[in-house]
Amino acid sequence: MATVPSVSYSITVRLEAPARGHAVSQLTQAVEHAGGVVTALDVTASGHERLRIDVTCAATSSVHAQELVQALASVEGVTIGKVSDRTFLLHLGGKIEMQTKVPIRNRDDLSMIYTPGVARVCLAIVENPDDARRLTIKRNAIAVVTDGSAVLGLGNVGPKAALPVMEGKAALFKRFAGIDAWPICLDTQDVDEIVRAVQLIAPGFAGVNLEDISAPRCFEVERRLRGLLDIPVFHDDQHGTAIVVLAALRNALKVVDKKLEDVRIVMSGAGAAGTAVLQLLLAAGARDVVVADVDGVIYRGRPGLSEQLRWVAEHTNTAGYRGDLRGALDGADVFIGVSAPNVLTGADVARMNDGAVVFALANPEPEVDPAEASEHAEVVATGRSDYPNQINNVLAFPGVFRGLLDAQSQEVTTPMLLAAARALAGVVGDEELNANYIIPSVFHPDVHTAVAHAVREAALGR
Amino acid sequence: MATVPSVSYSITVRLEAPARGHAVSQLTQAVEHAGGVVTALDVTASGHERLRIDVTCAATSSVHAQELVQALASVEGVTIGKVSDRTFLLHLGGKIEMQTKVPIRNRDDLSMIYTPGVARVCLAIVENPDDARRLTIKRNAIAVVTDGSAVLGLGNVGPKAALPVMEGKAALFKRFAGIDAWPICLDTQDVDEIVRAVQLIAPGFAGVNLEDISAPRCFEVERRLRGLLDIPVFHDDQHGTAIVVLAALRNALKVVDKKLEDVRIVMSGAGAAGTAVLQLLLAAGARDVVVADVDGVIYRGRPGLSEQLRWVAEHTNTAGYRGDLRGALDGADVFIGVSAPNVLTGADVARMNDGAVVFALANPEPEVDPAEASEHAEVVATGRSDYPNQINNVLAFPGVFRGLLDAQSQEVTTPMLLAAARALAGVVGDEELNANYIIPSVFHPDVHTAVAHAVREAALGR
Repeated sequence: MATVPSVSYSITVRLEAPARGHAVSQLTQAVEHAGGVVTALDVTASGHERLRIDVTCAATSSVHAQELVQALASVEGVTIGKVSDRTFLLHLGGKIEMQTKVPIRNRDDLSMIYTPGVARVCLAIVENPDDARRLTIKRNAIAVVTDGSAVLGLGNVGPKAALPVMEGKAALFKRFAGIDAWPICLDTQDVDEIVRAVQLIAPGFAGVNLEDISAPRCFEVERRLRGLLDIPVFHDDQHGTAIVVLAALRNALKVVDKKLEDVRIVMSGAGAAGTAVLQLLLAAGARDVVVADVDGVIYRGRPGLSEQLRWVAEHTNTAGYRGDLRGALDGADVFIGVSAPNVLTGADVARMNDGAVVFALANPEPEVDPAEASEHAEVVATGRSDYPNQINNVLAFPGVFRGLLDAQSQEVTTPMLLAAARALAGVVGDEELNANYIIPSVFHPDVHTAVAHAVREAALGR
Repeated sequence: MATVPSVSYSITVRLEAPARGHAVSQLTQAVEHAGGVVTALDVTASGHERLRIDVTCAATSSVHAQELVQALASVEGVTIGKVSDRTFLLHLGGKIEMQTKVPIRNRDDLSMIYTPGVARVCLAIVENPDDARRLTIKRNAIAVVTDGSAVLGLGNVGPKAALPVMEGKAALFKRFAGIDAWPICLDTQDVDEIVRAVQLIAPGFAGVNLEDISAPRCFEVERRLRGLLDIPVFHDDQHGTAIVVLAALRNALKVVDKKLEDVRIVMSGAGAAGTAVLQLLLAAGARDVVVADVDGVIYRGRPGLSEQLRWVAEHTNTAGYRGDLRGALDGADVFIGVSAPNVLTGADVARMNDGAVVFALANPEPEVDPAEASEHAEVVATGRSDYPNQINNVLAFPGVFRGLLDAQSQEVTTPMLLAAARALAGVVGDEELNANYIIPSVFHPDVHTAVAHAVREAALGR
């Protein structure tokens, strides 16, 4: 896991130390000796003899956090009080809430927002159902739907344990695109039931963001819902990833001065994300792609291919290569990993062409150590925040849905995804572009408006 | 419908009038002559020759509002601009929104609320599922669920047209009890599908408020969901009404100095609300109740009784009375109408005992004209806001759910409903109680905390 102290394993230790002597200066030393980083040290109460101090430090893991507490405890004269985990504190009671947008101060307000006044608003929608987008939250509301079957790197944790992620996602929708997203965690992993449940709750929403539903069920869920609903359905693990990968690849290829139509791309992973990345690469003009899954490179006629992998076989590997992933890298220009940790070494990357581009997106441990990869590749990107070029879905999904909602779009199409990728790539100006900056930060002020604008225009057919 | 100008039919007319002469003073006169009330008159721009004025006035209906505009237009020198409907303005874009409770300012914040930090929170819930109530929105979130089949007095308007009501309800939950309620409008009216959909979305919520689902389906939906879910399920049209009726009746009987155990109660209406009111009255100790529906008084053996009406027959009308509603009123102490407009006249009320109590709750037109009823009854209550003693569900549901959530209750029981009614009645002090004040205002500062406290204590078995 992470080897650098991270704020996501950050603790605040309330302790008491002697007011005199060297105890205070020893606290920071003790944490650093134990491999942690002190990020804040606040004296919260002071007396003649004793100080009460809140020491906040970043650790590399939960176990390491405990070691830091022990290190602090071992400083002479120090007594440890409450230890708080900053991440858990942030999640307490949930990260989002519902708020009213209208004042309810008196009987007049009540009679307008509720009975009897609300009846006229209902009747207006009966007369013209499209008015629901004008007179209700439907205009700006999306459902963030999961069955909890493929949550982050954790796997099948179920709907309740998925809720913190869906809330986080909803919070990001609001923060970056002003969208009212509400988490819907489904107590089923049956495709028919997922599809029907989403269809039944759809009237109150203007879009559906599917999240963390495992392959291959996610393909069918999305396909069927797109056929049934008159609002856009977007599986972020697939299309969000695909948009950001394509945007980053466009810019990476500019850095190494190659064209998407000409490069040889090798992919590791043919799950939800891999399939969507492949589809978008092909739609964008890529012509030479080879995909490997856990059973090796996918080729036409490989025994036991599922329907979805047959599609992959038919659209890739035109040369009919049947070797392993390593062999496929000989002379490749681009490697895109959306699979598992440590499937490649630096030596494997060395087999690639000059000006190699390596996207190792398995998280938290990439397909190849990014430092090793950098010795042989010209551009390296990962899904991690502690290396340059983070491929992060947050770059795409808020703007995508903002554009869809603004256009009152009833669907998501490949041209919209391509437009989103193009706009995202374009946020990095030619004068800014380099091997360590192929993709902007999620906090870049232009990212989400640029993506939203591009998607809206594409949705409106402009 | 309403015969008094109401803010729920309030319009703002932007017009221009001559700066000199009597035009301005004639505006108010014109509205009043046409039967409206000017509630605001703002000069928004002024020149030497012309004034721009926003005139806000209350009408009795949509048609009447148009008449007021005509009346304003007929004033000499006046030209009419934009006419805005205040109620529609208030509903534009919806009345609620989602908000984030945590700052997302930088990469550190992101890494704590989303990946990778959120993974530890998910794992904590995997280890201990009850932690979902501590670490997520589940603690304070309820679903406001409808199928749009019995919305207000409008009937079966469907899920989209029901959304303005569900939003209003959600807003009231937040305003009066701090609850994060989110509307779920279901695109089905099939009992099995409603039950299954609610069951599937339940993991993210700590309670379900069923709303505006027509009888008899609402009984089965609620009964089955209560059996399936580990969170409380409450059909407000039933139990919310029952709590407020029982609270108001307790106080009304104090005013006329009678006891619930002794009085003869006649009810009109055996639908969702009627059945729930009956059940709670019986649970509270009422012993002599006669119920009539559209086919007359319900008695054992009446041909064609449904399962639910058989239950009513078995628990009421011990004397086996078989006449009509009017006849049943002879010597009755209490009339409770939850049925249809104008089923009784003042003369019918005159047949009741001295110290009669009349609750005529059909909305917006009561079972009997409240003014006529007042000539013969000592206490009269309606569902309308323009008469004293408004029986309004908003008095109950926010506090009920606050109490349920605070107790982390897995169910709603009759003792909790009885406790809520007792607490609500108790908000009116003995020194305040009189025939025109048997129930407090929804804006009374003690109402919702009193109800919440009572329900929580009952839920915790105290």
